[in-house]
Amino acid sequence: MIIANISTSLDGYITGPDDGPGCGLGVGGERLHYWVFGGPWTYADEHSSSAMAGEDKAFYEGIVARVGAVVTGRGTYDVTGAWGGTNPWDIPCIVLTHHPDDQPDVSGFEFAGSFEEAVNRATELAGTRDVSLMGGAEVIRQGLAAGVVDEFGLSIAPIILGAGKRLFEGFDTDVDLTPVWVRQSPYATHVWHTVNHQDPPGPARTR
Amino acid sequence: MIIANISTSLDGYITGPDDGPGCGLGVGGERLHYWVFGGPWTYADEHSSSAMAGEDKAFYEGIVARVGAVVTGRGTYDVTGAWGGTNPWDIPCIVLTHHPDDQPDVSGFEFAGSFEEAVNRATELAGTRDVSLMGGAEVIRQGLAAGVVDEFGLSIAPIILGAGKRLFEGFDTDVDLTPVWVRQSPYATHVWHTVNHQDPPGPARTR
Repeated sequence: MIIANISTSLDGYITGPDDGPGCGLGVGGERLHYWVFGGPWTYADEHSSSAMAGEDKAFYEGIVARVGAVVTGRGTYDVTGAWGGTNPWDIPCIVLTHHPDDQPDVSGFEFAGSFEEAVNRATELAGTRDVSLMGGAEVIRQGLAAGVVDEFGLSIAPIILGAGKRLFEGFDTDVDLTPVWVRQSPYATHVWHTVNHQDPPGPARTR
Repeated sequence: MIIANISTSLDGYITGPDDGPGCGLGVGGERLHYWVFGGPWTYADEHSSSAMAGEDKAFYEGIVARVGAVVTGRGTYDVTGAWGGTNPWDIPCIVLTHHPDDQPDVSGFEFAGSFEEAVNRATELAGTRDVSLMGGAEVIRQGLAAGVVDEFGLSIAPIILGAGKRLFEGFDTDVDLTPVWVRQSPYATHVWHTVNHQDPPGPARTR
C-alpha cells in the first residue's frame, strides 16, 4: 500500500517564502512543524522530534508503525542537507532525482531516476509494510496524478502563510477520497483519507 | 464576535470550474456540499438540507445556534439566484456589493456598499449573537485581511478538484490561529479555529 502525507498551512502551502538550505520550510514555515517538535522552534536553535507529544505523537507513531520505506524528492533531500548526511529513519529512503548518478556513498539513501522506479524500489524494500511518499509536493502530486496513492493524509497547521510553495500548484486532476479519521493537537489537525481509486484518475471536470 | 466558515476541497477550491447560475459550486463541485444535503445530490434534482445528518448536522446546528446575521458577497447572492428570491435563514442577510442601489424590495436581504458597512450593519442586527461571513471567498479574504475574524472554520470535503475558484487566491497576509475542535463525517472534516489577533495582521513573512 502507498500512502502520502505532508504538512500544509490552511491556505495550502507546504513552505513559507524563501525556503532553502538552513530554512527548509521557508520564512515563517517553522510553524508548519510545531507539531513535529512539540511546539515553537527555530531554524537556529536545537530542536528534536523527541519533544513531540499527545495527538501529534500518536499520529506520527501510527505512520512509523506501518511504513517500510519512504520516497522523497531531490529538492527535499537537498534542502535538508540530506538530513545532515544520514538517513534519520530506520527504513530505506528512496530519493527521486533527475540525476541518479549523484547518489552519495552513504547507506540509507538510494537515488532513483523516475517516479515509477522510485516507487517500485521502495515497494520492494518495504516488503509487507507500506511505502510513504513524504514529499516534497512534486512527489505527492505525481503519486496522486498516477493514481497509485491508496491513503492520503494532511497535517494542517493552524496558520495562513499568504506565500510560499503550494502543495497543489499546477495539479489538474480530479480525485475522490473518503475521510477515515482525524486527530487534533494545538499545533495541527491531522486528517486521513482513503483514495477512491479511479483507473486512471480523471482530469478536472468541466462541462 | 465575527466568525467565517466555508466549504473547500482538499486543494483549497470553494467551487469547481464553470460555476454560475444553476451550477453554483461549479462542475463537480456538488461534492463540496454532500455534507449539507446528507450525501450525493445534483443541481438538477431536488435536494434539501433536511437530509443533513450526524456530525454534519451537529456542526451546522452549532453555528446556527450562535449566529444572528450573515454577510455574503454579491457573487454568491447572484449565483444562487438570491436563494430563489427569499432569505432561507431566520436571520438577516447583508449582501456586500458594488451596487447597493440594486437592493430588491424583499425582506431578509440588505445590500451594503463596503465591507465595513456590511459588517457593522450585521453586527447591529445580530445583537448579542455572532455575525457569520459565509462567503464567497472574497468576503472571507477581506475579513481575514482586515483582522476582524475571531473564529475561522473550514469544512473540508474529501475531494481534490484540480480546478475552480481558490479560497485563498491572491491572499498575501500571514495569520496565526489555534485549532479548537474538529468534527468528521463521511462527507467533510469540519475544522474550527480561533484567530490569534495581531493588530493589524501582518503581510506574508519574508527575509
